[in-house]
Amino acid sequence: MSDAHAARRERLLEHCSAGGADAALITSPVNVRYLSGCAPCGASLLVTRERALLVLPADLPPDDSGEHPYPADLPTRSAAHPDQDTAELAAEAAAEFGAADLAVEEHDLTVSRYRAIGERGGPRLRGLGPVVERLRVVKDEQEIADLRIAAEIGDQALGELLESILVGRTERHLAMELERRMVDHGADRAAFPVAVGTGGHSGRAGHHPTDRRVEEGDFLTVSLGAQYRGYTVRSTRTFVIGAAPAGWQVELHRLVFEAQRAAREALAPGVECAAPDRAARELLAAAGYREEPPRPFGHGVGLETREAPQLGPGETGKLDNRVPVTVGPGVHLPGRGGVRIEDTLVVRPVAEGGPELLTITTKELLAL
Amino acid sequence: MSDAHAARRERLLEHCSAGGADAALITSPVNVRYLSGCAPCGASLLVTRERALLVLPADLPPDDSGEHPYPADLPTRSAAHPDQDTAELAAEAAAEFGAADLAVEEHDLTVSRYRAIGERGGPRLRGLGPVVERLRVVKDEQEIADLRIAAEIGDQALGELLESILVGRTERHLAMELERRMVDHGADRAAFPVAVGTGGHSGRAGHHPTDRRVEEGDFLTVSLGAQYRGYTVRSTRTFVIGAAPAGWQVELHRLVFEAQRAAREALAPGVECAAPDRAARELLAAAGYREEPPRPFGHGVGLETREAPQLGPGETGKLDNRVPVTVGPGVHLPGRGGVRIEDTLVVRPVAEGGPELLTITTKELLAL
Repeated sequence: MSDAHAARRERLLEHCSAGGADAALITSPVNVRYLSGCAPCGASLLVTRERALLVLPADLPPDDSGEHPYPADLPTRSAAHPDQDTAELAAEAAAEFGAADLAVEEHDLTVSRYRAIGERGGPRLRGLGPVVERLRVVKDEQEIADLRIAAEIGDQALGELLESILVGRTERHLAMELERRMVDHGADRAAFPVAVGTGGHSGRAGHHPTDRRVEEGDFLTVSLGAQYRGYTVRSTRTFVIGAAPAGWQVELHRLVFEAQRAAREALAPGVECAAPDRAARELLAAAGYREEPPRPFGHGVGLETREAPQLGPGETGKLDNRVPVTVGPGVHLPGRGGVRIEDTLVVRPVAEGGPELLTITTKELLAL
Repeated sequence: MSDAHAARRERLLEHCSAGGADAALITSPVNVRYLSGCAPCGASLLVTRERALLVLPADLPPDDSGEHPYPADLPTRSAAHPDQDTAELAAEAAAEFGAADLAVEEHDLTVSRYRAIGERGGPRLRGLGPVVERLRVVKDEQEIADLRIAAEIGDQALGELLESILVGRTERHLAMELERRMVDHGADRAAFPVAVGTGGHSGRAGHHPTDRRVEEGDFLTVSLGAQYRGYTVRSTRTFVIGAAPAGWQVELHRLVFEAQRAAREALAPGVECAAPDRAARELLAAAGYREEPPRPFGHGVGLETREAPQLGPGETGKLDNRVPVTVGPGVHLPGRGGVRIEDTLVVRPVAEGGPELLTITTKELLAL
């Protein structure tokens, strides 16, 4: 993988040169990870034409495993004491390496850190802008392989839960169990707190699990995602508890299912980012369900649980090949509950079979 | 509690006035929580002489519980769409309320956000400095009551684990179980990822749980802490697996126990912040254990898992009454393992019985 990381640093430098900088200081932890393959807490990465340098904080736990935890081809330097800022040290190294113009991540650096770097009188500081975030949008096949495994882990955890008794258990307890199962199946960790919503909480975006217990006749909505080697996906499913779903439940589920399918089918390279959301939203609106203000039904995923591109209404960019995105419309009826169905898919051209579905747990209305 | 929050905002304004500002913009999430009693993700808090205003991002999940989730005496305003920055909106409101000089948290605001606020041409921006962090150091009795409950939850979870079979289980699995048990006992969540180190990993600060399984004769070190109503504590215990600890294990445990006791006994109002660490470190050094570079053996806790004061070597401040701190020296012998023992205590004067121990699980060398 270190060749891939070196190639990414190469592309970053091309952007820097175009902007007049001869070096870049990366402080955003996910961006450090993307460019180096590792992200020790508090580390900063310096990239210059001649070399890259990973600057580590003083208080990293000692490594007595015998393994070298950092990429062998990436030199490191450590702070001497806990109060030293790795970004300041990296800027110092930039001066040492002869850099005159250093591009920094102004959307990550705090005003205080930025000033402290500037006051050292090293290279001139320039804004890098979200260059690394843009490089991260299109994934390589290794990244997609990691996303595939992350999705598989979530599917396994959810599959096991569906085989157990659910009635009487609390939302919080079910959420914790799913998190544990994902770790058991090899996840680094849950990518975000698992959301379980039952009854009146079902179908709600951003629901925090409560002590409400699952009851017969409930809708049950589960949103989960594993993180695997840093890469995260997410999926949401809505099921019904008990033998016979009510008529309104069957109907609402069918509608959201159709809306989600329409959004998935709208995914293709070259398509406008707003198109999938629009496809789903129009179907829901035709049935009388309008969300105010509209929450985007999808977004990119990767090293962050939510990253570029955004797939909400009004987004003007175009989708690229090999961009993993979520597609997750839903309807929530206050007091009654609702349905949300969400997948992570990789945008692929029709010639390659169209969008690749990563989260393969069934989207049918299972009665549990 | 809202009286307490209003009183805190009052004290903040006194500091602002002293620095020439007539309003403060708070963006650090824990500081927002400290001053308002709630911390919706992405919110900003404006505090002026006449009023306070909590500015909420557009994409908060709708509240259909019927409860008002924000303090009744604190007016709120919401962003109209997801791209609006709550800090910018708060600065706009400051202008509206007639503020001429707005103190901002330069250690929290990124350069990009700071510029965006400045470009709106509202009040002049000044640095607030870590004023709220300093206000947070001494806790009131309500905060200490929450810390006490957080400690109790950790003690319960650990107590249950000690009654179960440990041999053959992995570090990761034990860590997950402790996190689940803390949530079951009422924690908001684990304050930080639980650390479980066995065998050669025991006694190591900052260890990440691995798939290593517990074996007979191992040292087992567990670091855990619950978060309760936002407040966090931490404790660390080291046990031995099997009936008979080896001689070196008994000796090392006794030494670290004595060092930790010396540090605890050094806690008192008016004492230098470096004193507890020094007391422990001298005992360890006399037995031949020196840590290079020295990692501080303690620090404050509260709304953050690590906050002011720092209790490391070279700290020059003095301890205050009602400051909760951790005290956790340890020795790690590469390849063999080691011992770490850590408590959270509240600094109290002798007249009130001396330091109040919150994390009460036994510190003896239990053979499990």
